[in-house]
Amino acid sequence: MKIVFAGGSGHSDRVISTYETIPGAVCTAFCRTGRSENPKAAARIPDLREYADAVEMMEAEKPDILVSDGFFSTHAPIAAEALKRGISVLSDKPAATAFEDYLALAELVRKPGAPLYWGLLTSRYQDCFYTAKKLVEGGAVGKVRMLNSQKSYTLGNRHEFYRHAETYGGTIPWVSIHAIDWMAWVSGLKYTSVYSVQSSACNRGHGDLEMTAISVLEMEDGCTASIHSDYYRPNGAKVHGDDRLRVAGTEGVLEVRGSKVYLLNAENDGETPLPLLSPPRPLFPDFVRALHGGTGSLISPEDSLYATYVALKARESAETHERILL
Amino acid sequence: MKIVFAGGSGHSDRVISTYETIPGAVCTAFCRTGRSENPKAAARIPDLREYADAVEMMEAEKPDILVSDGFFSTHAPIAAEALKRGISVLSDKPAATAFEDYLALAELVRKPGAPLYWGLLTSRYQDCFYTAKKLVEGGAVGKVRMLNSQKSYTLGNRHEFYRHAETYGGTIPWVSIHAIDWMAWVSGLKYTSVYSVQSSACNRGHGDLEMTAISVLEMEDGCTASIHSDYYRPNGAKVHGDDRLRVAGTEGVLEVRGSKVYLLNAENDGETPLPLLSPPRPLFPDFVRALHGGTGSLISPEDSLYATYVALKARESAETHERILL
Repeated sequence: MKIVFAGGSGHSDRVISTYETIPGAVCTAFCRTGRSENPKAAARIPDLREYADAVEMMEAEKPDILVSDGFFSTHAPIAAEALKRGISVLSDKPAATAFEDYLALAELVRKPGAPLYWGLLTSRYQDCFYTAKKLVEGGAVGKVRMLNSQKSYTLGNRHEFYRHAETYGGTIPWVSIHAIDWMAWVSGLKYTSVYSVQSSACNRGHGDLEMTAISVLEMEDGCTASIHSDYYRPNGAKVHGDDRLRVAGTEGVLEVRGSKVYLLNAENDGETPLPLLSPPRPLFPDFVRALHGGTGSLISPEDSLYATYVALKARESAETHERILL
Repeated sequence: MKIVFAGGSGHSDRVISTYETIPGAVCTAFCRTGRSENPKAAARIPDLREYADAVEMMEAEKPDILVSDGFFSTHAPIAAEALKRGISVLSDKPAATAFEDYLALAELVRKPGAPLYWGLLTSRYQDCFYTAKKLVEGGAVGKVRMLNSQKSYTLGNRHEFYRHAETYGGTIPWVSIHAIDWMAWVSGLKYTSVYSVQSSACNRGHGDLEMTAISVLEMEDGCTASIHSDYYRPNGAKVHGDDRLRVAGTEGVLEVRGSKVYLLNAENDGETPLPLLSPPRPLFPDFVRALHGGTGSLISPEDSLYATYVALKARESAETHERILL
């Protein structure tokens, strides 16, 4: 099983750190897709061949799996080239930064007999979110009525491609998308409308990059949801991100905060962190298992497309100031 | 200084518990304004005369101050009758539940030489929110860029008047209004637009009462804000409410949670609660001081109107599914 990297930094680390546990898996090549620094893949895996271009790499290497995490605008076109060649794809989110790219990709992903396509929906493999999913599925909060999420990152000094809307795609598709995904996943509900606001003011010279974004969403059954994302976590903060989720239901309230899970219901006081559950296996082994026909994976091709669809519509709402039906 | 109560339950306790500290203050009468249970005022203050009607009470007692906290739809008409008679008013929020009542009240409040009118914006006198205000004013988070709030209550078994939109007014004007007020107060910024969603599903037989409501607001300078409110805190929870505020700014993040204040910036780790400050005096003594011409109070007539104006527009947005400019 031959693996190549387009980008090879960012969330490729999910592959780099686990591929050796998979019998027969071998990483052979990478390309930079515009990033100039030496990617993690090249630094941590010996003897990777470098190509100037993703298509040239696919043609020469004929890989089984392409891992794509270059500039965010390259995710969709590179994934499309791979799928057309019968290569399975593990792509960072968002699946696309332009809506027309999303539509073209979705058609390829949904084609009968298409190679496997997954987005790197990494939060699903964090113990805290996995535990939240299992508890909510098990009825810990009763019927889910409202979900509220936070994403907060440190800004630091970001690569040039974050500073241009064409290559970055926006804070909603890059940051809020995690919460868009985990709220649908944890609740099992689809979104029915979205409205967003955002601002790129006070972004310390980061061009187009939006420093804050808020989306409010309606879901099936009159359930409601919101996400606020920002880059205002101070650079000196001990932990890079501050992800939070709150799920209010007819029988209680569950919270994910500081990678811990709290539950307030008839049996739990909401103040003592609950024991965490772990997913059966990490993301990349789960992907390879699905590739071999295994069922019960934490991600599906449709879920991967859905998070991007909602994120791109949420961004469109922020740009048009209109509520958008989903 | 003669004080009477229209309602005499709910937030009248701010007056009941402090009026004796004010030289010459005396409470003489109450009316129920539709509540059937014996109000707190009558239970805790000896020898209050009871009247069948607020206007009759004002005519007979000729009070200096009317405290109004009956059915929420009665706040505006009763306050209007008092102001027309030269009686100062301390009214629970919202100032009005119908927009036409709000407009009529605002005209009376703003008339030159009008008696003093304050809304019971009780959160401003909580140590945690007062401390947040002072820290943000002092530059602890730099320039404010995003504010996010939570209000969460236990539902219990609410009085009949909560179950009808005409007497209750809605969860946004009754619950979210606190956060609408404290975010404008803490940041010093005005709102420029609002969009809301809400749901009255799964409300355990409470008629029209909305169990969840989310508002997202734009503010001056591209600052953004959100509020999510719900009644899903389990009935057995140790504390009735779970108020939260998060303020993200160019230099740090401040949080109010569990009545404590946390600050993450160059000097603070975000995990150690900060020492709390207390307001110079409680709400009612502050009101009386303003009545005597004192300056520097924590509430003003304009602030009291403003929170209601924004709350009623936020409710209108939830009803029309439209973004509303403020």
